Parts: sequence; C-alpha cells; structure tokens
Amino acid sequence: MALAFTRDEYRRRATKVRRQMENRGIDVLLVSDIANQFWLTGCEGWSFYLPQFVILPLADEEPMWIGRAMDVPGARRTGYMSPDRVHPFPESHVQRPDRHPCDFIGNFLGDLGYSGKRIGYESDAYYFSPRGFRSLQAALPKAVFVDCDVMVNWERAVKTEAEIAYMRRAAATAARCMHTAYELIAPGVRQCDVVGEIYKLQMAGDPELSGDLTGLCPIILAGEAGTTAHPIWSEERFASDQPVAIEVAGACRRYHAALCRSLYLGRPPAPVTDTATAVEEGLARVLEAVQAGVTAAQVHGAWQAVLDRHGMKKDSRIGYSIGVGYPPDWGEHTISLRPGEDVVLESGMVLHIVIGMWLERFGLELSETVLVGEKRAECLTDFPRELHVKALA
Amino acid sequence: MALAFTRDEYRRRATKVRRQMENRGIDVLLVSDIANQFWLTGCEGWSFYLPQFVILPLADEEPMWIGRAMDVPGARRTGYMSPDRVHPFPESHVQRPDRHPCDFIGNFLGDLGYSGKRIGYESDAYYFSPRGFRSLQAALPKAVFVDCDVMVNWERAVKTEAEIAYMRRAAATAARCMHTAYELIAPGVRQCDVVGEIYKLQMAGDPELSGDLTGLCPIILAGEAGTTAHPIWSEERFASDQPVAIEVAGACRRYHAALCRSLYLGRPPAPVTDTATAVEEGLARVLEAVQAGVTAAQVHGAWQAVLDRHGMKKDSRIGYSIGVGYPPDWGEHTISLRPGEDVVLESGMVLHIVIGMWLERFGLELSETVLVGEKRAECLTDFPRELHVKALA
Repeated sequence: MALAFTRDEYRRRATKVRRQMENRGIDVLLVSDIANQFWLTGCEGWSFYLPQFVILPLADEEPMWIGRAMDVPGARRTGYMSPDRVHPFPESHVQRPDRHPCDFIGNFLGDLGYSGKRIGYESDAYYFSPRGFRSLQAALPKAVFVDCDVMVNWERAVKTEAEIAYMRRAAATAARCMHTAYELIAPGVRQCDVVGEIYKLQMAGDPELSGDLTGLCPIILAGEAGTTAHPIWSEERFASDQPVAIEVAGACRRYHAALCRSLYLGRPPAPVTDTATAVEEGLARVLEAVQAGVTAAQVHGAWQAVLDRHGMKKDSRIGYSIGVGYPPDWGEHTISLRPGEDVVLESGMVLHIVIGMWLERFGLELSETVLVGEKRAECLTDFPRELHVKALA
Repeated sequence: MALAFTRDEYRRRATKVRRQMENRGIDVLLVSDIANQFWLTGCEGWSFYLPQFVILPLADEEPMWIGRAMDVPGARRTGYMSPDRVHPFPESHVQRPDRHPCDFIGNFLGDLGYSGKRIGYESDAYYFSPRGFRSLQAALPKAVFVDCDVMVNWERAVKTEAEIAYMRRAAATAARCMHTAYELIAPGVRQCDVVGEIYKLQMAGDPELSGDLTGLCPIILAGEAGTTAHPIWSEERFASDQPVAIEVAGACRRYHAALCRSLYLGRPPAPVTDTATAVEEGLARVLEAVQAGVTAAQVHGAWQAVLDRHGMKKDSRIGYSIGVGYPPDWGEHTISLRPGEDVVLESGMVLHIVIGMWLERFGLELSETVLVGEKRAECLTDFPRELHVKALA
C-alpha cells in the first residue's frame, strides 16, 4: 500500500512536534494516541487493542513503533520509517495478570538510554491505561514523565493540502451516505438496515480510494431514541410523523468529514419546523462568523445570539476540530467552540460545526465540516441544509 | 428498546460481582470497561469517547451510571436501573486542559460517602486513562484504590442460556458474512467493496434483531497484507493465485461470535494446501480436547502436538474467551489458550479458537466459536472448514 503522504510530509510533522518537545524540555515522546501515531508514521492496522506506541526521539532520527509481535509486519508494511525502526513486544506479554506489555516497553526505552531522561507521554489518550502507565514508571524509576497530552493533537489542527484532499473525499462519502439515508428512511424500514447501507458506502469509499471505519458510528435519532444524543441503532422501524436526525461521516485514509441532517416523515408540526428554522439560522450565523483570526468563543457567540432570540438553551459546545480519527472518536480533542475558549482560528483548520438540539420530545441536528480560510469558511460538503420533508403517500 | 435480559438476570450479575468485592474488601466498584458496564446494566450508547462509569456499591442497591450530561437520556432509556440512578457530569468538563470529568466524578463519589473507603477500579480497561485515574485520586485523597482489573470480566466467562441465544444469532450472522465473502471475493474485486457488504450484513443482523458493530473490524489477509495479522482493507483488488484469509464476527446485543476461514483463488500450490491441512488437523485436535474440566494449557497442548508433527512454530495463543465486546476488541481478556495457563474450563464458557498462521509469503486462518460443554465442545457455527478453493474460469 502506498504511503498516504510523502516522506517529507511525515518528516515535517515530526519537526513540528520536536519543536514542542524542545519547548518543554522533553528528550523522547511516547505517543499512545492512535490517531497521533498514524499521523506521525502512517502505521496502520487493527492492533491497538493491545498497547502500542510511537517513540519520537528529540534527536533527528526516524520515529519508532513498538507493539504486539504479530503486528510488527503490518506496521513495517504501512509506516514510512525503515523496517528496523519497528519493534515487537513478545507474545508472552499479551493479557496476563503477572506482566504487561509496558513492562517490556519501559525496559526497551531504558535500553535506548532514556532511563534518566524526561519522557513525554499522553495522559488522556484512548488505549493507554493506568496500569500501562504504572508499568512504564516502574521500569523507568529515574525517568521524569512529563504530561504532553494533546500536544501532538494541536500540531494536527492546521491541515496541509494533501490532508484536505483526503477530507474532501471523505466529505463526498458522507454526502453519499446522507443521500442514501434520505432515500431509504421511510415508515416500516428498520433502522439497522439503513445503517447497514451507510456502512457499505463508508467502506467502499470512492472509485479510487477505499473508505475507513469512522471514529463514531453512524447515529440515527428516531422514535424512542430520538431525544438522546448518541443512541445505537436497533431493529425498530421508522414511523410516520416522526423526525429523524442523522449524524454520519466519511473517512478516507483515516481523515474524516462529518455531516448531520434531519428529515421528517410526513408533515412536520410547528415545534419541529420552528426548531429547524432556529437551527438553520444558527448554523448560517455561525458559518458567517468563522474565519482566520476569530476565537472559538466568538464563533460560539454567533450561535448564542440566535439561541437568545429564540429563547432556547443548549449547554454543549457547537463544534470541534476534526481530522484523523479511530474509534471511538473523530474529534481531535483540541479546539472546542464554546464560551471562554480563546484559541484563535487559523487558515487550514477544519471544524465540525454541529448544531444539535435534543429536546424533550425529539432531536434535530444540522452540521457542516468547514475549512477555515482567511476571510471565510468553506463547507466541504454541498448538501441542502433545510429539514428534509418526506411527504408520505 | 426492550432490555436484553430480565431484571433478575442483571441482579444476579451484580450479586456475583459483589461476592468478589466482598472477597477483596471493596466498598464500591468503579467499572470503566464498557463491556462490563453493558453487562452489568444494559446501558448502551456511543458515549464512551468521554469518561463514563458504572458505580456498583457493595450494599444491595442498584448500580449507578455517570457520564456526559447529553448522554444521560440515552443511559436512562437503556439501563435496567431506575432513572434516578443515572447521573451526569456537566458539559463544562468536556475535553479541557484545566478540568476533567473524573474531577467531578471523584467528588460525586465523595458525596456518596466513599471518600475514606476502599474503591475498586479497573486499571487496564479501555477508555480509562492515567489522567482520569489521577483526577479520581486527587478528588478522593483518603480513599484506597484497589486494582480489580478483569474481576468483572471473569464473572462474564460462564454464559447463561439467554446470553448463548444471542451468541447463536451472532454466529449465524458471522456465517452469512463468510458466505458473502466467499461469493464476492474474486480477481479484480476490491477488498473494500467486500468489507462494505460484510458490514451491511453485520448491522442488519437477522429478521428479528439488529446486529452491532463488532469489536474488531472485519479482517482480510490478501495480497500485500497477506502476511500481517490485523491489516485494514484497502482498494487493492484480489488477484488470481492468491490465498485470502477472512476473520469476521457477528454481534447481537453486543454478544459476539467470530469465524475465520481461508480461500484460494485458483489452484493452491503445495505450501498452501500443506499449511491448510496442518491447520485443519490442528483445529480438529483442539476441538476434541475442549470440555469442562481441562485446563487452557491442555487445550493448547493438543495444537502443539500437531505443530510439532508438522515441524511448524507459532508463538501466539490459539484462543480466548469471547462475549460482550465494543471496539477495539471482542475478547474478554480472561482465558487465553496457551502454555502455562492453568484455568480450568467450565460448562457455559465460550471460546474463540483461532488457528492463524502468518507465514513469510501468505497467511491462513481457521477458527470456531465454541461453547464448552460437560463432555464436548459445540461449535456455534456450522460452516465447512476446509480451504475453500475457488476455481477460476
């Protein structure tokens, strides 16, 4: 499989991260976040159900990968580094009470000369556990562990042209999924059958490139589950006179673009159309506010003004940075659009802006994945935003 | 959505776990493993990308759930407990450097009276991070945290009839996926298109019950990726004269049954048929060895004898306990079939026995999900085991 990016792009990424390591006086960075691992090395595979790390030395050397022995060939095949930078922990360390892969990995770091050094680690990344951390500390009692959580994530926020190209493909897949959902959702149809068709489109990707499993699963708010934020589909059938909200993404080479839309099966009553109007207006105002130089809080302010005018309330953030993702998330855990966030948006950032209203009786969602530009934001998908009314025969 | 099990079954599960808590002198158990949470409460939703816990008091009270505020309605709808046992952490704690959901959750435990108590926790569960643990400890400085990793998992090992019924449905889905893979895989077909059809079947489940996203993704060993254990599909096309190994599961109400098979596009050469024969023979011997009363190591011994006879080598375990799973895994992290494991098999345990050989030039896999019985093992799927040879026109 060809690398998703040029070796130079991977090297530039490492350089960006090393600059941060230098600022924090870190000798070596232990990357446990799988999305960060992929971004830094290209290493790909479903091996992260066991501990695995990318080791990035401050010195200008290629990153290393260490993971389960049987997954070493996969990492060698997919990573940009030379094969001798990919190392196994032995099969004897898989899921045992008496030893842990991080015992071995800690000793491995010691052998590399990092025993007395400052080791950066990601304290809140998925798939890095308290036990794993404890094992590392026990193996390296003289090392100083420095919390570098989301440090690499922040370096991912501004995308390159090559990354944006994958996200555009992902956005096209998301739009295809949404079109199919619009087409298939009808009274009597089972939720799970629609979700199955969505997965099929997600994996197929486009005629040139395959798609990936998205960080979040497709989410359908309908019927009983209509008022909850992240329900799992079931065999429940769609019914007439029902609002349905759909949240779906496409992923290409792990880069995501997400899309939320809502539809109504039948003639929507006033509370639904009123909420839909407020949500549409809110998204429009928010999109107008997005451009390089404004803060995340300012973007949220545009939505708050609409909420206030309509006398509505919503506690949760209205967007976040999106990019490389693995289950269970596609957000980058950096930028959040909400009050008090003074991070300044830059050209090349990509945000998933979601206006979701989960009310007592129903839920509606509307979103765009947008590329921040100097003077405006560009939506990666061109898909009608209004509540899709499906007239019933 | 109806509960997957009776309230009595959930209560019996809590009682089993409390017995272990008593043995270890635990006052309250903090369950972070999502599969354990589901098993104990039925709470379901894609909300675990943020910290969430099931809190099981030693006292005979219903378990509690605590997670993101917007996901509280979902947990109330799906869990068996009364709604007042489901609690939010506020939206203000989502993904911030200055505070963590576990700060709030720690204080919540303190308010419940657990500040000076012995708190059990799961040190190596997915989705519980070092930072989360640190926050809990800081909020409860007088509490004693006791590592109860995989304690609940062990209670899941022996399945009830109701659980086995879901696994049988899951097994039927896995078989449908495998039939479709056999049908579709042909020279010129893209891997990702086959995977898409598999996902479609997985989600649709059966005419009565929907399917779920499986813990591991479908895995296809073919072409370039043929010698690696857990590759991700791509747009690569299958080619003639190629072995293809497929690992796939079905999941119903989160209960998994997995199945691995191998096929050959064209006329298989001797090294492939020889390996296939050894693998088939190995699986047959292993299945004969499985019954209540034997140890995990004894089961492995049956395979070792075959390996020795064929002069082959394999370091990794040949099976594990399977059941409730969420990405990234469907294994229960308890029983492993390998040398030195003296756990005794019991009736009602379910194992995924996988004979996978990843050789230098190709990989073959063969597996069964088996229910341990008093005198024998029952395969949950009835699917031909031999290397499927697809003659090319």
